[in-house]
Amino acid sequence: MKNQKPTLAKGTRDHSPAEMAKRKYVFGIIEKIFRKYGFMPLETPAVENLNTLTGKYGEEGDRLIFKILNSGNFLNGVNQSDLEKAILTEGKSLTKQICEKALRYDLTVPLARFVVMNQHTLTWPFKRYQMQPVWRADRPQKGRYREFYQCDVDVLGSDSLIHEADLIRIYIDAFKAIGLPEIVVRINHRKLLQSIALWVAPDMIPEKFIIELDKIDKIGTEGLLQTLNLGNNQNLLQLINFLAKNTNEGSFKHVFEWINQHIPQTELLQQALTELETLNSFFDLKPNYAPFIKLDLSLARGLDYYTGVVMEVITTALDMGSLGGGGRYDNLIGIFGGNMVTGVGVSLGIERILDVLNSLDRLQNIKPADTQVLAIAMNQNCFIAADNICVMLRENGIAAELYPDYNAKLKKQLAYANAKNIRYALIIGENELEKQEYTLKNLEIGEQLTCSPQYLLQLLKQNYATYN
Amino acid sequence: MKNQKPTLAKGTRDHSPAEMAKRKYVFGIIEKIFRKYGFMPLETPAVENLNTLTGKYGEEGDRLIFKILNSGNFLNGVNQSDLEKAILTEGKSLTKQICEKALRYDLTVPLARFVVMNQHTLTWPFKRYQMQPVWRADRPQKGRYREFYQCDVDVLGSDSLIHEADLIRIYIDAFKAIGLPEIVVRINHRKLLQSIALWVAPDMIPEKFIIELDKIDKIGTEGLLQTLNLGNNQNLLQLINFLAKNTNEGSFKHVFEWINQHIPQTELLQQALTELETLNSFFDLKPNYAPFIKLDLSLARGLDYYTGVVMEVITTALDMGSLGGGGRYDNLIGIFGGNMVTGVGVSLGIERILDVLNSLDRLQNIKPADTQVLAIAMNQNCFIAADNICVMLRENGIAAELYPDYNAKLKKQLAYANAKNIRYALIIGENELEKQEYTLKNLEIGEQLTCSPQYLLQLLKQNYATYN
Repeated sequence: MKNQKPTLAKGTRDHSPAEMAKRKYVFGIIEKIFRKYGFMPLETPAVENLNTLTGKYGEEGDRLIFKILNSGNFLNGVNQSDLEKAILTEGKSLTKQICEKALRYDLTVPLARFVVMNQHTLTWPFKRYQMQPVWRADRPQKGRYREFYQCDVDVLGSDSLIHEADLIRIYIDAFKAIGLPEIVVRINHRKLLQSIALWVAPDMIPEKFIIELDKIDKIGTEGLLQTLNLGNNQNLLQLINFLAKNTNEGSFKHVFEWINQHIPQTELLQQALTELETLNSFFDLKPNYAPFIKLDLSLARGLDYYTGVVMEVITTALDMGSLGGGGRYDNLIGIFGGNMVTGVGVSLGIERILDVLNSLDRLQNIKPADTQVLAIAMNQNCFIAADNICVMLRENGIAAELYPDYNAKLKKQLAYANAKNIRYALIIGENELEKQEYTLKNLEIGEQLTCSPQYLLQLLKQNYATYN
Repeated sequence: MKNQKPTLAKGTRDHSPAEMAKRKYVFGIIEKIFRKYGFMPLETPAVENLNTLTGKYGEEGDRLIFKILNSGNFLNGVNQSDLEKAILTEGKSLTKQICEKALRYDLTVPLARFVVMNQHTLTWPFKRYQMQPVWRADRPQKGRYREFYQCDVDVLGSDSLIHEADLIRIYIDAFKAIGLPEIVVRINHRKLLQSIALWVAPDMIPEKFIIELDKIDKIGTEGLLQTLNLGNNQNLLQLINFLAKNTNEGSFKHVFEWINQHIPQTELLQQALTELETLNSFFDLKPNYAPFIKLDLSLARGLDYYTGVVMEVITTALDMGSLGGGGRYDNLIGIFGGNMVTGVGVSLGIERILDVLNSLDRLQNIKPADTQVLAIAMNQNCFIAADNICVMLRENGIAAELYPDYNAKLKKQLAYANAKNIRYALIIGENELEKQEYTLKNLEIGEQLTCSPQYLLQLLKQNYATYN
């Protein structure tokens, strides 16, 4: 047992220093952008009471929540007949008796819990971001893990469309900053979708129509006509025809015109259009944002939750699913009996974004490269002197380390510098000490020069942002 | 059920934006210092295989590991007699049958697992830091949580004492940087402790003596003499007498002299002294470090683990336990049957450090204060213009947000700025728009001035580090 080679739990990953460099780079950029828009960080615990989580994610979701066994005698209070029942129910009847706690399944329910518990001390509107891992008992597969980070940003307590606008800008700013500008932010409005459903298929349950329409990108026109069984519906054909031609990204007006020409005016439709027009007014003619936005009449983003504007971000660089999405919801904390609080939020599919950036080789230059100087002592006599130089460099804000084994071959020491992407090797031997002139080797370009301590410091400070 | 007010799981905490500001400040400082010494970040999953963790923390530790219920039919393969046995064993016999996974209990075993699994691809010596939460089924009490962060820094694969020196310097640099310079780094050597044990009480199991000596700070001289039942032992009395007088921090020589005068030379003692002398050579006469270091002959830091230098950091600002500790160990990955790899590491008791800083009011000025400017539109007409100014400010690296409700009273909008520690309010009304001169209110000093967009930008850039 003791000598068995250990393994990772299924669906989990280590993040080595090389991977951490990439993750921290991307997370850091996104976080900075959140803060630039006035969002503040929140962290909630990984472990929540099981009854906080159950019933919030549907039956399938409940099944995928990881439950934590009660500590101590977890069978306390469980009797023989409970156990017999448990075997018959494949354990289901026993779960709540032996597990009071569970692992966070998303960042939305914990946000709702936090807000209900702290409603009276928060600053309203409450703008928070949260970047933390969640756990799901999904079957692991390529790109899908059982432990992965989510990244959410929400505004609670304000119905202004400025927040939708800010969240869209955050998407665009973030993807530009991480070097993935080939994106489209698809936008729609749930009330517009309902209006379209009523226009096309007044006899159908609107939600059924909406969820099928949302799939048009995947199943195609033929597929949609087939599933809905509305082959001769002229309104649907007109809609599909328009969707096929509507590649006119950035122009809401074009879509508004089509809607006004085709779909009968109702209060519901009017509400949707007014909101979308307000939203558009924040972008109209703004070259930094408008070209990335597309009003897309097929977008739904799930059924139960959203009540207003919905959005989704995709990349045109790769043929794959969305990199994030969200929208406005009317009553997040209602699930805990809190007062009605409107809100709007989006998530960034941070793990998928990392996968995309990696598969496009966009992060190849992001390496763990903090140490600027590796000091190399030529023998024991020089070791303390070399250490003193490292202390001096660090006091001046320069990251420096001393290779610990002065007996190691120079080649081995330089290989260490190379593996850690350290740019400079500082070689300290007897001669150097005597003359107070060190040999500085630039490992990137393979040049070396001799320099005084003062000049060394000056050179290094010029080349790097310091740490102090 | 649905309307019941939710609660946090026992022993867990939310970290509000105000708390996150303090946590990020302290974590950030410490992380920067780790990196300055060439340590690189590692993250391991929260969820590990249960058999990776069990048997590594002793019986008590095993009991405190949170186990995760298998998903799906967790009673699959469990029969009636297993269940009967389970009730008799208070669940113990069932745990491994229904739980394959568990929550990380510390950062050391995951490090060992990571190193065994990646031994051949790592850069050696492997220097990593790790700051992640761990979970323990402890009884929660003031300052003790069931979910809390640990912060570890280790070097694996090098026996050079330069690493002990670097870790001591990291302690001192970190505590200075976070504003808690009233610290002492206590240092000892396990082989020195063993030599003392043999000298004082050759008939006693050395470990028993060592563990009692370690408690002298708590139980006092009388207590120690009583527990050890060595009331007339002259060597012990001499030792105690020396410990009481040894307030001569920073001076190893004084302790070495006493040892050489009193304790018989053995190979074991010689090894310890040689290493301590080497360690001291890195600090001798260094005013930035030497005054904070104390060679303390009573320090043990637990029994099983360490084999060489041990260390611990305490604060003299408050009478409380250690803020971190660590030492050299000889065979970390042996628990997984890996090859012998020496290492040395310390942890920083990050939650306790935060508690200390808070109780000393050292973090009162660390507030969530990212937004530099709150734009306030006087009416609907000015709203878009105010938003445009925010966009312009952000493009220039200044964090800005627009108050979302232009109908709200000015007082309410300024209260929002105040609650979020926003320094400037930028007021945009019809007049301002017409003249292209905005009113900028410095909320900290209560002054206001009128300025052009250009001057506004210039002023703000002078006052803040920008985000770009």
